[in-house]
Amino acid sequence: MASQLDFIGKDYIAGISNNPRAASRVSSVYSEVQASRIDHALPLPSVFKNPFKIIDGPPSSSAGHPEEIEKLFPNLFGQPSALLVLNQSDAVKSDQKLKIGVVLSGGQAPGGHNVICGIFDYLQEYVKGSSLFGFRGGPAGIMKGKYIELTSEFVYPYRNQGGFDMICSGRDKIETPEQFQQAEETVTKMDLDGLVVIGGDDSNTNACLLAEHFRGKNMKTRVIGCPKTIDGDLKSKEVPTSFGFDTACKIYSEMIGNVMIDARSTGKYYHFVRLMGRAASHITLECALQTHPNITIIGEEVFEKKLTLKNVTDNIVDVICKRAENGYNYGVVLVPEGLIDFIPEVQELISELNEVLAEGNVDEEGQWKKNLKEETLKIFEFLPQTIQEQLMLERDPHGNVQVAKIETEKMLIQMVETELDKKKKAGTYKREFMGKSHFFGYEGRCGLPTNFDATYCYALGYGAGSLLQSGKTGLISSVGNLAAPVEEWTVGGTALTSLMDVERRHGKFKPVIKKAMVELEGAPFKKFASQREEWALKNRYISPGPIQFKGPGSDARNHTLMLELGAQA
Amino acid sequence: MASQLDFIGKDYIAGISNNPRAASRVSSVYSEVQASRIDHALPLPSVFKNPFKIIDGPPSSSAGHPEEIEKLFPNLFGQPSALLVLNQSDAVKSDQKLKIGVVLSGGQAPGGHNVICGIFDYLQEYVKGSSLFGFRGGPAGIMKGKYIELTSEFVYPYRNQGGFDMICSGRDKIETPEQFQQAEETVTKMDLDGLVVIGGDDSNTNACLLAEHFRGKNMKTRVIGCPKTIDGDLKSKEVPTSFGFDTACKIYSEMIGNVMIDARSTGKYYHFVRLMGRAASHITLECALQTHPNITIIGEEVFEKKLTLKNVTDNIVDVICKRAENGYNYGVVLVPEGLIDFIPEVQELISELNEVLAEGNVDEEGQWKKNLKEETLKIFEFLPQTIQEQLMLERDPHGNVQVAKIETEKMLIQMVETELDKKKKAGTYKREFMGKSHFFGYEGRCGLPTNFDATYCYALGYGAGSLLQSGKTGLISSVGNLAAPVEEWTVGGTALTSLMDVERRHGKFKPVIKKAMVELEGAPFKKFASQREEWALKNRYISPGPIQFKGPGSDARNHTLMLELGAQA
Repeated sequence: MASQLDFIGKDYIAGISNNPRAASRVSSVYSEVQASRIDHALPLPSVFKNPFKIIDGPPSSSAGHPEEIEKLFPNLFGQPSALLVLNQSDAVKSDQKLKIGVVLSGGQAPGGHNVICGIFDYLQEYVKGSSLFGFRGGPAGIMKGKYIELTSEFVYPYRNQGGFDMICSGRDKIETPEQFQQAEETVTKMDLDGLVVIGGDDSNTNACLLAEHFRGKNMKTRVIGCPKTIDGDLKSKEVPTSFGFDTACKIYSEMIGNVMIDARSTGKYYHFVRLMGRAASHITLECALQTHPNITIIGEEVFEKKLTLKNVTDNIVDVICKRAENGYNYGVVLVPEGLIDFIPEVQELISELNEVLAEGNVDEEGQWKKNLKEETLKIFEFLPQTIQEQLMLERDPHGNVQVAKIETEKMLIQMVETELDKKKKAGTYKREFMGKSHFFGYEGRCGLPTNFDATYCYALGYGAGSLLQSGKTGLISSVGNLAAPVEEWTVGGTALTSLMDVERRHGKFKPVIKKAMVELEGAPFKKFASQREEWALKNRYISPGPIQFKGPGSDARNHTLMLELGAQA
Repeated sequence: MASQLDFIGKDYIAGISNNPRAASRVSSVYSEVQASRIDHALPLPSVFKNPFKIIDGPPSSSAGHPEEIEKLFPNLFGQPSALLVLNQSDAVKSDQKLKIGVVLSGGQAPGGHNVICGIFDYLQEYVKGSSLFGFRGGPAGIMKGKYIELTSEFVYPYRNQGGFDMICSGRDKIETPEQFQQAEETVTKMDLDGLVVIGGDDSNTNACLLAEHFRGKNMKTRVIGCPKTIDGDLKSKEVPTSFGFDTACKIYSEMIGNVMIDARSTGKYYHFVRLMGRAASHITLECALQTHPNITIIGEEVFEKKLTLKNVTDNIVDVICKRAENGYNYGVVLVPEGLIDFIPEVQELISELNEVLAEGNVDEEGQWKKNLKEETLKIFEFLPQTIQEQLMLERDPHGNVQVAKIETEKMLIQMVETELDKKKKAGTYKREFMGKSHFFGYEGRCGLPTNFDATYCYALGYGAGSLLQSGKTGLISSVGNLAAPVEEWTVGGTALTSLMDVERRHGKFKPVIKKAMVELEGAPFKKFASQREEWALKNRYISPGPIQFKGPGSDARNHTLMLELGAQA
């Protein structure tokens, strides 16, 4: 694990601030824009400019099955939300120095470094003499006791920078009793007062289980979560957005906007763009709101309306034919990478295939297909040849077909091509269709955070620090009122148990934070739905351009957030 | 052809400047950043702030075979370069209004709209009452007489915007005597004093042939070229760079930088990034200088050193193994899309395949392979299975294998995988190799032009206007001294014939502007070569971040240009 870590930071440990030799070293491995961001001063919510205290709200429940959640979290269930309020006389203060650990969990999202810097600066400002430790390589770092002390010099070059490379991340989970035991040993040995877990829905569920475990054992270590994921599917009333979503969507939208202008200039290609988001289609929806593509597929709508693969294809074909009539033989189509997970018939096909293939009787002549149900066989044969082959050949070590390997945008291009060929033969479509495929994924996870994400994360970090200082545990750092100027943002914590429901797995109830899906009745989808017809047939392309850090556009917040907050984006 | 055109401009014809209703309309289809760019004022070389005259240099020759070039261009050969110089008494002026046509030719490049705006504004400022016409859809617009008058209102929304959608482009060439006749008829009917051809090497050769044709017939229509191509392979001593290269490379480098930070954060993927540039590897080299990847393949070096596909693969494998020893199991590899065109053995394979396959005797058992030479067969069998199949199955209508369809980065991943598997079995490599492929192409052709490209193109347009006003023809607009502040840039024109050589095709000499290849003795390659070993084994990743229009980094010029000019980037 350690060998996966590569600390650009170690080059800088020997004192960078106010050290011109070291500073020139920063500029030699940093681009001008990166370097300029390091010293970019971040605004803070006004509550941190004055003495504050923390007040508790009413007792909380859970997102579902409160009695089961209470059984799983006897020590934490029902905790109130916490809110920081200005208070002169009764302000939070302590002379006791704190030892805090922090861990990055799961996939990268722009802004993670700023959460850590926020915690660090909070401790420097409010609890002088405290220490912050970064667990290396994700939760495995906690279990293995691999960590590093984060000093002022160490964190400096990561300020406002993308990536998780300060301490790196990992996808391990703390699940078994032995693993909880390991975690317990590590934090006890380190004498930690608190632990901040920066992660998505699973990681925050894990954070809450750790908080419960530590509390149950009367340990002093508190646990606070932070909402991270570019997918945007970790949010609730009190946690308006997960960090990274804003930056990632703006990076993807820059590329989509460029491709759109290219499509219009060239006049002969349909660009099919697959976007990250396997479970929910927030990224695709946000990019659509930013760029106005001709066709946008939202997985949740496909699911809700029980659309088949043929329906989805026909809808695209329909728009292409109508556009051809208007003289437009080009366009842009956005596709969420999780699309086929939303189509029940494909799920059925996959599971039948897995069964049939497990029996191993796959003959060249295709007799094995007779073992598929008639309906399922139809779907299989509707798939393009190359996708059929991919499903048959590239199976995982358990022999299962690998849905995740299907390049959805290429599959759609081929299906659309086939249908258009039929129409051409029938004389109802007379143009040439040329599809170009794109996948925007890794490009968006580690970009320089936007001003919004940089500031939001810094406030999340400050918030986490303040919650730990006042002894809170089992909360997720929550910063609200995000449509207002930063000074007016609210800071607090939300009971992680209040976000939870249970799922039954292997006969047991497991706590889960339900992923926030695109709501068809929500403001973002409704705005999209009200305009998409115009976008389909006319051309209303918008090219957002590259993320700006100064000047026009530099303070824009994403449409999804603003619409959900009832504000104009 | 007309149906391929989609003028967002037509929405704006009814007077936009100083019209708040229309202006709000701009903002409704433009992003905040796009809108802010429209009114961005561009600096001009100081020669345009004062009265100037044009002086001629010494007679020119050609890049090669001067006697053949002279035969092909009897009226133009030997023309001197032209240079604008400040001059109070003897300044260029004319009361005669001009009618000028402009055409965009070939693939999109950021800045094309600004060349047109530059010509337009020049005419407005220096030759009031003149008219500018845009030929629609490229050279076909000249042949078919399809054009539109460009008014102040029409060009306004395209100022500093990416794309070629103002008048669109096309790839047709004016080649046959009939086509020259058509062009002649169009410009005569339009009574054009001048024509500006914005394009790459082929289009500028075409421009020169038109200039020769018009001059030979004593027509009044002059022709001026402008150097356009993101590939960066149209340049000479007097034409230091082609427009679009700066923006495209910065867009690709933003993405590469993001992927690098992701690679370092995740610690387990090798990202293979294919970049545009079929003929020359300038884009790949520039992106390498901007981002410091672990491995960069430069086609010209592969060719010069006569590397085989196995050599290229082994070099990559070698770096991967050494990095693994240092604990780094991740990295970034840049690959020019034209790579295999630089490998003679692959060219040999392709031509043998085309012959053997033309005979049609392809049997399932592979007996046909016996018709390949032994060496060629070896190379074929070194190719990954999927590439072999692709070559065999996806042939063009003439039955030829389609090299352009090969996804070079995926091919390399598979070859590297195969070699590493061997090493694994031999115990000399112990890690897991996971390759991820990317292709950055269309994303870079239509981005908002950088401040450099926006300003450079505007000056090119002004220059073209001034050359036409003073009756020049057969020159390419050339703006020099680009390392200096804009005020000090030089403006002039270079004889297109001086850039030319001949190639023998079908027994005839054809004039060509030789593509400028990456020179292994040039400063950009030398800088790269002197640092690449360090980049390979250590990690010196630089993330340039998104293009900025204001603040730090917004005035950066690309490394290739600055190094070639002998300046520090």
